[in-house]
Amino acid sequence: MPTAPTPSFEPVELARAYLLLNHGPVTLVSSAHGGTTNVMAAAWTMPLDFDPPKIVVVIDRQTLTRTLIEESGEFALNIPPRAMAAQVLAVGTRSGKDAGGDDKFALTGLTTRPGTRVAAPLIEGCLAWLECRVLPETHNQQRYDLFIGEVLAAWADPRAFSDNRWHFPDAATRTMHYVAGGSFFATGEEFSVA
Amino acid sequence: MPTAPTPSFEPVELARAYLLLNHGPVTLVSSAHGGTTNVMAAAWTMPLDFDPPKIVVVIDRQTLTRTLIEESGEFALNIPPRAMAAQVLAVGTRSGKDAGGDDKFALTGLTTRPGTRVAAPLIEGCLAWLECRVLPETHNQQRYDLFIGEVLAAWADPRAFSDNRWHFPDAATRTMHYVAGGSFFATGEEFSVA
Repeated sequence: MPTAPTPSFEPVELARAYLLLNHGPVTLVSSAHGGTTNVMAAAWTMPLDFDPPKIVVVIDRQTLTRTLIEESGEFALNIPPRAMAAQVLAVGTRSGKDAGGDDKFALTGLTTRPGTRVAAPLIEGCLAWLECRVLPETHNQQRYDLFIGEVLAAWADPRAFSDNRWHFPDAATRTMHYVAGGSFFATGEEFSVA
Repeated sequence: MPTAPTPSFEPVELARAYLLLNHGPVTLVSSAHGGTTNVMAAAWTMPLDFDPPKIVVVIDRQTLTRTLIEESGEFALNIPPRAMAAQVLAVGTRSGKDAGGDDKFALTGLTTRPGTRVAAPLIEGCLAWLECRVLPETHNQQRYDLFIGEVLAAWADPRAFSDNRWHFPDAATRTMHYVAGGSFFATGEEFSVA
């Protein structure tokens, strides 16, 4: 297991990385190539396999993120807390092509730290991070905008996820699910059935 | 727009069908072929495109559902309320191969009505339904257990979804998100950012 980049990042066992996405939270997709970085929002992402962990994500062909991911073969999924909802909406509705790369970070005040396995940066203040490499599937990418990623490293803020489970400490530190038009659902109460 | 099969089913405009899945709820996948029907739980499903609407879903190759979907080229996604959590867990942990097809319905007390565009039945008591035909992508199916479906018809119980939005009337009539080991998150409160 690699060393966590800071104390608030703790490694998540790769075979359990699917748990970060299993409930369907909205994500931020970060990417970098040739000195340009970008971030966009993505609700259309889910686990694809357990071990080695894979995920799928839809990346529209009109986006700067698409270009950066295709050029670098890498990206990161960042899982934001409810407290970041306005920033998620902002990066989901503006294009990095218009803003000019790094400007989406400046625009929203999002800050980053370097990824540990990929060039894509990891967004500070998120609750969990999945560093991914693209498993090239040209047909899916070209026909469906669908990308398959292998998760190379996974991290979580232990205040929200530890011992392979989410345990949100407060309302602002919960994941959220995108609806449409600026509306989200907070992740609600946990319950179990026998 | 086709006629709704009963008053508690109302049609959802196809271009808005993605809204039924956008927040990442757990689903039940129903299927039928040659007189055999089955149902399984699937958390790994998401929208893939708006119009015509497409979805993706992971269907393990060990399942009876996989056989029925491959033989029929059709399936339905049913979105259950929290009140059905125990049944979702039951059909997610038992195999139709062991139970012998229809027995999973008998076992759990789930009842169905016919689909309108597909042979797969629609599960009574769910909040929404997406009738899908498989868009054959043999490589994805064989390598990743990943199926792409085109949504041919979508329905919702207007008590939970109408005018293109979810508005859950009470705690038992909310969607839910699967975690692991019999645990779920309820879909929580809705909020908007400007």
